Order: sequence, then C-alpha cells, then structure tokens
Amino acid sequence: MEHAYAVIMAGGRGERFWPLSTLKRPKQLLSLVDDTPLLTQAVERIRPLLAPDRIFVITSASLVEATRAVVPELPAENVIGEPCGRDTAAAIAVGAGLVKRRDPGAAFCVLTADHVIRDLDLFRETLSEGLKLASRKDVLITIGIKPTYPSTGFGYIETGASAGTAGRIRFLEGKRFLEKPDAATAARFIEAGRYYWNAGMFIWSVRTIESAMAAHRPALAPLIAKVAGAAGEQGVTRVMESVYPTLEKISVDYAIMEKASNIVTAEGLFRWDDVGSWPALAGVFDADASGNIVIGQCEHVDSAGNIVYSKERLTALLGVKDMIVVQAGGATLVCARDRAQDLKKIVQRLVDKGTYGDVL
Amino acid sequence: MEHAYAVIMAGGRGERFWPLSTLKRPKQLLSLVDDTPLLTQAVERIRPLLAPDRIFVITSASLVEATRAVVPELPAENVIGEPCGRDTAAAIAVGAGLVKRRDPGAAFCVLTADHVIRDLDLFRETLSEGLKLASRKDVLITIGIKPTYPSTGFGYIETGASAGTAGRIRFLEGKRFLEKPDAATAARFIEAGRYYWNAGMFIWSVRTIESAMAAHRPALAPLIAKVAGAAGEQGVTRVMESVYPTLEKISVDYAIMEKASNIVTAEGLFRWDDVGSWPALAGVFDADASGNIVIGQCEHVDSAGNIVYSKERLTALLGVKDMIVVQAGGATLVCARDRAQDLKKIVQRLVDKGTYGDVL
Repeated sequence: MEHAYAVIMAGGRGERFWPLSTLKRPKQLLSLVDDTPLLTQAVERIRPLLAPDRIFVITSASLVEATRAVVPELPAENVIGEPCGRDTAAAIAVGAGLVKRRDPGAAFCVLTADHVIRDLDLFRETLSEGLKLASRKDVLITIGIKPTYPSTGFGYIETGASAGTAGRIRFLEGKRFLEKPDAATAARFIEAGRYYWNAGMFIWSVRTIESAMAAHRPALAPLIAKVAGAAGEQGVTRVMESVYPTLEKISVDYAIMEKASNIVTAEGLFRWDDVGSWPALAGVFDADASGNIVIGQCEHVDSAGNIVYSKERLTALLGVKDMIVVQAGGATLVCARDRAQDLKKIVQRLVDKGTYGDVL
Repeated sequence: MEHAYAVIMAGGRGERFWPLSTLKRPKQLLSLVDDTPLLTQAVERIRPLLAPDRIFVITSASLVEATRAVVPELPAENVIGEPCGRDTAAAIAVGAGLVKRRDPGAAFCVLTADHVIRDLDLFRETLSEGLKLASRKDVLITIGIKPTYPSTGFGYIETGASAGTAGRIRFLEGKRFLEKPDAATAARFIEAGRYYWNAGMFIWSVRTIESAMAAHRPALAPLIAKVAGAAGEQGVTRVMESVYPTLEKISVDYAIMEKASNIVTAEGLFRWDDVGSWPALAGVFDADASGNIVIGQCEHVDSAGNIVYSKERLTALLGVKDMIVVQAGGATLVCARDRAQDLKKIVQRLVDKGTYGDVL
C-alpha cells in the first residue's frame, strides 16, 4: 500500500508472564504461542501489506537490541527505544513523528505486539480498508473487536450509527470509550450488541493524529514535529531523551480517544486473543482430556484445570487443581489460577530482595 | 562393646521422595536432614558403641557402590547387596549370617537408615542395654517408640508387664504386633498408654534369631547358616544369588515377631522421626511464620501450609495452600499435601512411559 505505515507498540514489561518473561526478556520477545516471538508474529502478519521499512517498532531503550534480534527483517533504525515509559500517548506521538519524517501525507496503523490474531486475511483487510479510509477522511479509527463473552478484563467502545462499509469491513460511529466494566455491566454490553472490545489498535493519518494531539493534549503535539525533524536515528533518540522526562504518563485512550468526536470504529471480526497473563493461555491453547493446558513436559495424576508451562524440565502434578505451574529460567512459579493478577507482587518481592538478578 | 554388632537395613527404593530420591539414589543416600546422608547418620550415631568392622549395611546390589561411597569408614565387604528385594525377614537372615561368620556368640541390633533420631546418648543407651540383655537372655527385643501423637502411619506394639530396667532403659513384655490402626484405634492406643510405635529396630543374639527363624519360618533359617559358612565376600554374594530368588517376600514382623512369644520391648524415649515421605519433613523442620516448611530457595506470597524443597532453583508461590513442591534433578513435583502417599503413581507413570530415564 502507498502512503501507509505501521507502528507496533512493544514496550511491555512482562511481569505477568514471570518467570518465562523477565525484565530483560518481556512477553513480546517470547515464543508463547506458535513457537515464534509475539513481536515477530505481529510483524509477519502485516508484511503482505507493508514493506519492512514501513514498519516501526517502539520499545524501551534497554530492549532495543533484543527487539531487533527477533525482527531482523526490519531496518535497525526502525526499532526505536524509549528512554523511559510514558504510556501509549507518548509512544504514538513518536510513531507519528517517525512516519511524518518519511511521508507527511501518510496514514499509519498502531498495532500491539502482545496479542494472538487468527483469520489473518480478515485482519489485513481491516487494516487496509482502515488505512484507505484514514487517508481520505479526518477520522480517528479504532479497531473494535466483536466480543465473544462478557469480559471484565477489557475496555469497551460504544458504537453508534454506521459509518459505511468497505469490502467485508463495517465502520461504525465511535461514541464512547469505556473502562473495564463489572460483570453486570459487561453482560449488558453484550446484550446491547453495540459495544466492542478496545484492542488498543488504531488507524489514522499523520495529519489527523497531530491535530487531535494539538487539540486534546497540546503538550504532546510538539513531540511529533520534533521527531519528524530530527536528524537521523541519533537525532530521534536525542529528542526522546530530552522530551520524555517532561511528559506525563498517559494512555492514548485517556489523552485523545475519550475526548475526540471524530472517532470511527472498524469492526474487527477476526479472532483476537489477548495473551495478557498465564490464565489467558486457556483462550489460545486446547486443554487435554483432564482439563489441563500443558505447554512442554508434564505428567499428571488426578489433576485438573491447571496451566503448565514447562519446556526445559519435567513437571509432575499429583492431586493438583486450578494451579498455574511455570518452569523457566532459573525459577519455578506455582500460583493459584485465580491469583495470577497478583504476580507482580512476587516479582516486586524478588526485585526488593536484590539477590534474584538471574531470574528477573 | 564386646560380642556386639549392628546390621543396618538400607534397601529402600525411595519413590516417596521423588524427584529428590530416584531409583539410582534412594532416600538413605540423600542429605534430607542435617546435610548428611541418612545412612551416614545411621552409622555415625552408633560409632561410639561399635568399631566400623562391626557394622554391616544391607542394600540392593545395584546400590552397593553408591552406598559404600557414603559410609567410607566401613570396610567395603561390610556393605552387602541383595540381588532382589525380599523384604526385611530375608535381609535380617543375611545380617544374622554375616554376624555369625565373625562371632556365633554375638548379639546384634537391626537398625534402619531412614529415620532421624535425636537424644543420641539415650538412643545408644537403649542399644547397649538391649545388646547386654540380648547376650544374656533368649529374647527378641524390639525398640518401641513412646508415641507422641495418635499416628495412623505406624504399626504399634502392645506391651505388658515390666521385664526389668537397666540404667535409664525400661524393658516391657512385648505382647502383640499391631498393624497401622485407624484414627479411632490409634486414639485408644494413646489413651491406654501401653502401646508403642514399631520402629523396625530390633536387638537379639545370633542364636535367638536363628532359633526363632527355625521355629517360625523354617525356609529362612538355612540362609543364616549358608551366609555364615560362605567363603569371602563373593561366597556371600553367591549364596544370596542362589537362595534369594526362592524366598518369599515377607517382613520380619509377619514372619517372626507376630508369632514369637519371647518378645521384649525396649522403651525408646529418644526422639525418633520417620522421614518416610515429604509430609514427614514437617516433623523434622520448623515451619516459617506462614506455616511453610522451606528447604532451599523459596519466596511466597499469601501461601501457607506448604512443604518446599528447592535447593537448586528458586520456587515462588502465590496463593498456594497445603502443597508439596519439590525441585530436584531435572524435575519438579507439585503435589497436594494429602496425596503424597500416591507419589508412586507418578513414579510408575514415568517408568511406564520409558522416556524419563534421566529423572528416575
């Protein structure tokens, strides 16, 4: 596609997949699914649309080398490291600046590196139709995933009237961004039918996102121009190093999407799985006859409902129910399945103790 | 002591401590407690009574070399390997034969290699007074441990009238050997006061045990004479290789003790802990403030009642209750604490699969 780019956000810390993921090797660099790092998959699935030099990856500065290693097809200068984490609004401003340096008239999609996507043709059609629409119209397009169950783990987008159809892709007026709901609210959303999961994927032109930032988050807009005007890779790095510390940490949802009125939702009908934590693997892998999800070597007796990741060593379970067992690096995690959201407490404990450098 | 010997039974397979123990490295060769192999401890605690050449160890033929390595003080020929397992009656017959070869007028104690004993002076006094009594009188002495709780995991000995006192050691008439009781029966035993745990430790003269075998298990008695008459270590091995396959598998409790009428119980007031399986470590190690017994490296959050053995790698627990987690060799076991008695099912599964040689 002409005048089209992609910016892949790959800045996750990956505490929620410890001990497989570590601060040095976060989730997007891991082969959690399909034996390929999630970031590599994110690049590969858009390659039929975009040449490698049109794909940017934004990660943290400390991960630039490790990130380049899993996407060797991309030019090294397309993998950019943030000096510190400032959430998605700042990363998207940098991405907009990188695209603008090349082509101020371009449109680009903002993609994530930590989801599993199936139905790739449909996914690519969503992107290509979205990119066409974004080049033509001053709209902020968000991809809304058609919910398959009343999740309380995702934000939702309330949609309104039709905004047209292109090929298999429906566009809808984007009315409201809603935070993670409680169970009753989520159930109402599903029943109502017009609510979609916010997948953190967006499509817009450089011009539109720059205007939106200028209007809704004026402190961010100059970052786009500065990155666009920077001399070479080192110039971009210097801009980020000088500007980032002054920025507040804010997501693009809060900074822009909740305020803008020119939002369009592209209906995402492809299969999309957030592999945000160990329990989410249940959505990606099939359970065995005993209801255990096993990745690697595991023998179990009278055990059910467990998630086991054990590629390097054998895990043996006896009388174990609803646990997560992960063996990776120099550590083994045993965690009640309903406590996975607190994994950061363990990681923090290890960080605090200061003697566990080799498993962090 | 003159005319005194010891025979240590060290033939355990150690499935109940998998994956720390393996078929090649069973429990008695492990440093489960006090950083010394249990068998080494068993030898060291009787050394103040007996010279090394008076101590025999009976293990399985495949473990002879590994066993000699943990008791280097003993003459190599004092460590004898059984060609196959025939339970304690046969092993004791061999032990009686080995002692008889040296000194037909001797008494010997039969000891185990898989218990933790504290109050060693009292333990040794029990042995030395028992050996004195056994040299003098035609009695089968069993050491009965004063129960500290109504265990359903041990056999019991019902005692009767006093059979005398020597130093701090009381001897009682041994009336009955009782199998592992149910909880209500165990409670009655404790209340009655005259019941003792059967620790599998015995003291008798060569003459007395040989007569008892001749009377109660005639098929076994010739083994004593044949071992006693064998020429050298190889002669003993040849006798065992020819006789063992013809023997039935039977414990000394069933074969002799339940039938004999000349039984005396030596009251064992020393602290004795059977470390028969992972949960038994609770009796030997102190729990931390959260009620977790940790041997090795473990960090835990909201976890209680667990037993963790993790010397080589880190174990992290989150929201885990009443589990056994063992990391050793190339495997990790996660097992409900109340299911530890079924650990052999896991080991059997691994044996059956035939691909887990390196963790068995």
